[in-house]
Amino acid sequence: MDFIIIGGDAAGMSAASRAKRTQPDMNVTVLEMTQDVSYSACGMPYNIADPQRSIEELVVRRAEVFREKQGINLLTGHRVEGIQPDAQTVSGVSADGKGFSFSYDRLLIASGASPVRPKVPGIDLPGVLALKSLEDGRNIKQFVKDKNVRRVAIVGMGYIALEMCEAFRALDLEISMLKPNPNLLPWLERSCAQVVQQELESHGVNLLFGQGLKGIEAGANGLKAVCDETSLDVDMVLIAMGVRPNSDIAANAGLALSVADSIAVDKKLQTSHDHIYAAGDCADAYHVVTRSKTWIPLALRANGAGWAAADNVCGKEKTLPGIAGTAVFKVFDLEVARTGLNVPEASAAGFEPVAVSVKTRSKAHAHPGNTTIYLHMVADKKSGKLLGLQMVGREGVAHRIDAPAVALHAQMTVEDFSESDLAYAPPFGPTWDPMLTTANQMLKKIG
Amino acid sequence: MDFIIIGGDAAGMSAASRAKRTQPDMNVTVLEMTQDVSYSACGMPYNIADPQRSIEELVVRRAEVFREKQGINLLTGHRVEGIQPDAQTVSGVSADGKGFSFSYDRLLIASGASPVRPKVPGIDLPGVLALKSLEDGRNIKQFVKDKNVRRVAIVGMGYIALEMCEAFRALDLEISMLKPNPNLLPWLERSCAQVVQQELESHGVNLLFGQGLKGIEAGANGLKAVCDETSLDVDMVLIAMGVRPNSDIAANAGLALSVADSIAVDKKLQTSHDHIYAAGDCADAYHVVTRSKTWIPLALRANGAGWAAADNVCGKEKTLPGIAGTAVFKVFDLEVARTGLNVPEASAAGFEPVAVSVKTRSKAHAHPGNTTIYLHMVADKKSGKLLGLQMVGREGVAHRIDAPAVALHAQMTVEDFSESDLAYAPPFGPTWDPMLTTANQMLKKIG
Repeated sequence: MDFIIIGGDAAGMSAASRAKRTQPDMNVTVLEMTQDVSYSACGMPYNIADPQRSIEELVVRRAEVFREKQGINLLTGHRVEGIQPDAQTVSGVSADGKGFSFSYDRLLIASGASPVRPKVPGIDLPGVLALKSLEDGRNIKQFVKDKNVRRVAIVGMGYIALEMCEAFRALDLEISMLKPNPNLLPWLERSCAQVVQQELESHGVNLLFGQGLKGIEAGANGLKAVCDETSLDVDMVLIAMGVRPNSDIAANAGLALSVADSIAVDKKLQTSHDHIYAAGDCADAYHVVTRSKTWIPLALRANGAGWAAADNVCGKEKTLPGIAGTAVFKVFDLEVARTGLNVPEASAAGFEPVAVSVKTRSKAHAHPGNTTIYLHMVADKKSGKLLGLQMVGREGVAHRIDAPAVALHAQMTVEDFSESDLAYAPPFGPTWDPMLTTANQMLKKIG
Repeated sequence: MDFIIIGGDAAGMSAASRAKRTQPDMNVTVLEMTQDVSYSACGMPYNIADPQRSIEELVVRRAEVFREKQGINLLTGHRVEGIQPDAQTVSGVSADGKGFSFSYDRLLIASGASPVRPKVPGIDLPGVLALKSLEDGRNIKQFVKDKNVRRVAIVGMGYIALEMCEAFRALDLEISMLKPNPNLLPWLERSCAQVVQQELESHGVNLLFGQGLKGIEAGANGLKAVCDETSLDVDMVLIAMGVRPNSDIAANAGLALSVADSIAVDKKLQTSHDHIYAAGDCADAYHVVTRSKTWIPLALRANGAGWAAADNVCGKEKTLPGIAGTAVFKVFDLEVARTGLNVPEASAAGFEPVAVSVKTRSKAHAHPGNTTIYLHMVADKKSGKLLGLQMVGREGVAHRIDAPAVALHAQMTVEDFSESDLAYAPPFGPTWDPMLTTANQMLKKIG
């Protein structure tokens, strides 16, 4: 059987490895448009923060290993430009300019996502960069070094923007961040977002809210980022306004699209067309709380979906329940995490959301090194179900969030969750874990 | 209504506060034999480690607050010696030597547990101490200071023994630990236990396995702890051989006992006798995995059971599902955690246990500061159900264990758990969390 995979990053290479392990005699071909496969994309900000480290350290498995040890026909520099579902072929152009066409029995689209780039004047100037591929990371690192960058404007204030802000501050660069929206992290409860904002400001980051990017001008002394009401003289502009799914080839082939133009897949990762699967940042997923489609491009889902698609291609039927919208990031000394829905999302999904915000301590009473932890829980008044939890704090947030994530998968009520036998020892939390305290507060409210 | 509570620690004071909040006109009387109520018992080792801190810092709420602000009739120095269920009375002796007798409509036994003390010669010598009550903590702290203690023998190697070992090493004391069993932490998988043993040894702790305590002798220069095959010259002996439930008064009143002579209670915390409840370290609990009775005296259960008993006394029917056997402790730079069953426990409960041990990394590929994390998962081959997880590592263990604990409450299969949308960011773990990697390994084995 010929199994062709478009894209050699998390979902694609996971699928290729899994299929080859399950069926060693299968012909598995991966068509990757760049020269890089299998690297830790999420690790790039931390690598960029350290000039002593090479970006190549982020490579998890080299192309030769996939080719020689695993027997995968991995073709880098191969850009797929079209899918012909009826003919069961894909066609495109390779790095040397030659066209190619391959037949498949089963196809997996794992084409990922691309940074959103605003259509403003100067967006293509040297020094206007974005971070998605390893090549992007390489370019940023090189540019910072070669051009002796001192001042950076970051357009956007999402996860990547904040992680890159921290990385650049570690390099002692001056950072301004701008966005048109008046609020930092609008999905985060306001008092939690305020804590993040204070953390950024205490690290000398210049935050410009309500400022959209109008254009970028090249000058004698670097770049000028022109915003709605001000302008910034900088050496580099990082565009970090989020990503959009690379779904054009799927749409052109007549496959159904979904939320945010991601490729629609069922729980087996199958698209609207027989024999064609999609996985990773280009595809949608079911949300285990709303039971509806969502598009939240994150690494764990990409890896798991790659595996599940491969299993289905190999005839080992595998369904995935979906995602809970769990995410975590670090910004300076803060951990920020969420799982499930916030109030507006819960309302939009037809729930009757009730929210509780709690500010408590990260460790037991009187334990040294105690810090503050902020929690925000959302539940459904009608069913008593837990819908979501957000947390911000200096420690113990990133791993705590996994417990409510599992509770969301299990469709637990707040009362169920409040009765969970969570771990306790004074160095790690109060007797009632902050999450249980929050659940107990919620029970008083939804009684 | 007269609600009498025997014992003024975690379960007792939780129940008293909850009952008074729910029914402000209820007469709530707490009979506590010591002078101390509502303190962080688990915090004692960390307090003892720091000579600058007073043990009184561990008091969470002072007796006067319960009396004056909350209107609880809190009687310290009141030792209950008998319960008369037919007459609905309790009787005992107060600190001034006078007898007392009180009538109740509802009774809660929250008498806690006491340290096991071996019946060996010299066990009552000065300098032979145990740690359970705040008074014990006070005595240890005072003794270490007054007698200029340099060498301690710790009899036992459980949680408290290990936490006290760390505390004493922080005071730069020489520590020998002894136990008759040849293995450290026999409930822990051997390779995980080995990691803990190395940690203790690397901190200069002298571990004597296969050595029971035969007796203690007083000498001119301190104490001699006589063991099976050796003896130790020390300044202090800490008895930390575990605890037993204070259930004598319950047994004498004809109440049914359960595992390890704990007081048998149903999911409403009701004993075998109408109108009498029990909660905290003196009472048993259902295990959510085995669905059978167990006795694991820990603080969170004590607090939750106190609340639930009070709710039932107040006519707000409340059932608790039970415990998952979740526990965590810190020993030097290691975090050690468990939830659910190990292989022998699973076999004893009628499961067909399969185990997987995984050694992996605490952070993402190539992330700075990566450490090793050891996991041991147990599942049921027949049903595919997750039965338990153990973890040891230098970071991220204590809070991670809460996710499988919730999964056990939800009766998840390993496959369910493996599909959980857990948080990922490079500073906090690999893309596939170590727990998911372990679940994936387990699926290969039971798949």
